Amino acid sequence: MYEGVVQELIDELGRLPGVGPKSAQRIAFHILQSEPADVRRLARALTEVKERVRFCSVCGNVAQEERCRVCADPRRDPAVICVVEEPKDVVAIERTREFRGRYHVLGGAISPIDGIGPDDLRIRELLARLADGSVTELILATDPNLEGEATATYLARMVSPMGLRVTRLASGLPVGGDLEYADEVTLGRAFEGRRLLDV
Amino acid sequence: MYEGVVQELIDELGRLPGVGPKSAQRIAFHILQSEPADVRRLARALTEVKERVRFCSVCGNVAQEERCRVCADPRRDPAVICVVEEPKDVVAIERTREFRGRYHVLGGAISPIDGIGPDDLRIRELLARLADGSVTELILATDPNLEGEATATYLARMVSPMGLRVTRLASGLPVGGDLEYADEVTLGRAFEGRRLLDV
Repeated sequence: MYEGVVQELIDELGRLPGVGPKSAQRIAFHILQSEPADVRRLARALTEVKERVRFCSVCGNVAQEERCRVCADPRRDPAVICVVEEPKDVVAIERTREFRGRYHVLGGAISPIDGIGPDDLRIRELLARLADGSVTELILATDPNLEGEATATYLARMVSPMGLRVTRLASGLPVGGDLEYADEVTLGRAFEGRRLLDV
Repeated sequence: MYEGVVQELIDELGRLPGVGPKSAQRIAFHILQSEPADVRRLARALTEVKERVRFCSVCGNVAQEERCRVCADPRRDPAVICVVEEPKDVVAIERTREFRGRYHVLGGAISPIDGIGPDDLRIRELLARLADGSVTELILATDPNLEGEATATYLARMVSPMGLRVTRLASGLPVGGDLEYADEVTLGRAFEGRRLLDV
């Protein structure tokens, strides 16, 4: 429909996640009207990320050096490992400033329907990190959905002979949310996990 | 929050229209996991569009040559000009295959609130095209909103001394839509513009 290069850009943009044909068109016309320097910066950011980002040799998080920022930080407690599915989960947890241990990024969750089994995740690497017995707690912070729960259960069983403390993030009502809008499962979990108020 | 180059990419993506921080993050991680060749193709499409696309010297539509595909096509009727706001409107109209005339792209609509006046649009260029009297009909296809209507009214007044046929696209119910979901203004327009059924 469009002149060659415009259509090519729309097609390329349309392949990105969450970008439909209309958004691709809108972005393409925005690009057409942008300053050339801004577009070059975006193009460079795209190629640089591929050239310069790699994955941490220890935890699998994104990294610019051999180790990611968390693994390279000597102040982070190596005795506590928080297991997450994706690098973006690391960022979400870092944002809370609640956690001072290390991470292990699995690269996904067990999902038979998508053909993802335990061997497709970085579980062998996790077991290797636990082998010397220096880790005392493993926090399973996979997503609170079917795949994440299955992965957490699988991991908990795998590491149970090692005798370390294995925990799972609490499920419950989101802070600031409305009770009436919570789904039954979440509300059920919130009941199960209710805490005694010390007053 | 992220390692340098990843954050840079997220920031750059977040500047695109309709891409919020969450989408920018999702796209960035998609890029991280894509094949390098795919990413290079996207980066090239971005820079090529800036290098190779220009605007048609006649109508202001996007073009890869001096004239756009419509203006360069001798089969298109030069006596009918359809005035639109943006190049994407040209594509929308071309898709209908209803129109065999030429276009004129204004580059926007009159919008005092955004500081866009008649001088910021390609109105002078339109008047120049009408000067020799060879155009017989001017179809005003600006958007059916406040700014588009204001622009159409302004143009209709400007060209009224030239004695050519000036038309406006019909407003009414969208085909395939539900009458009960139409807003009052659209429904009102549909009544105003009702047609006699020849049965």
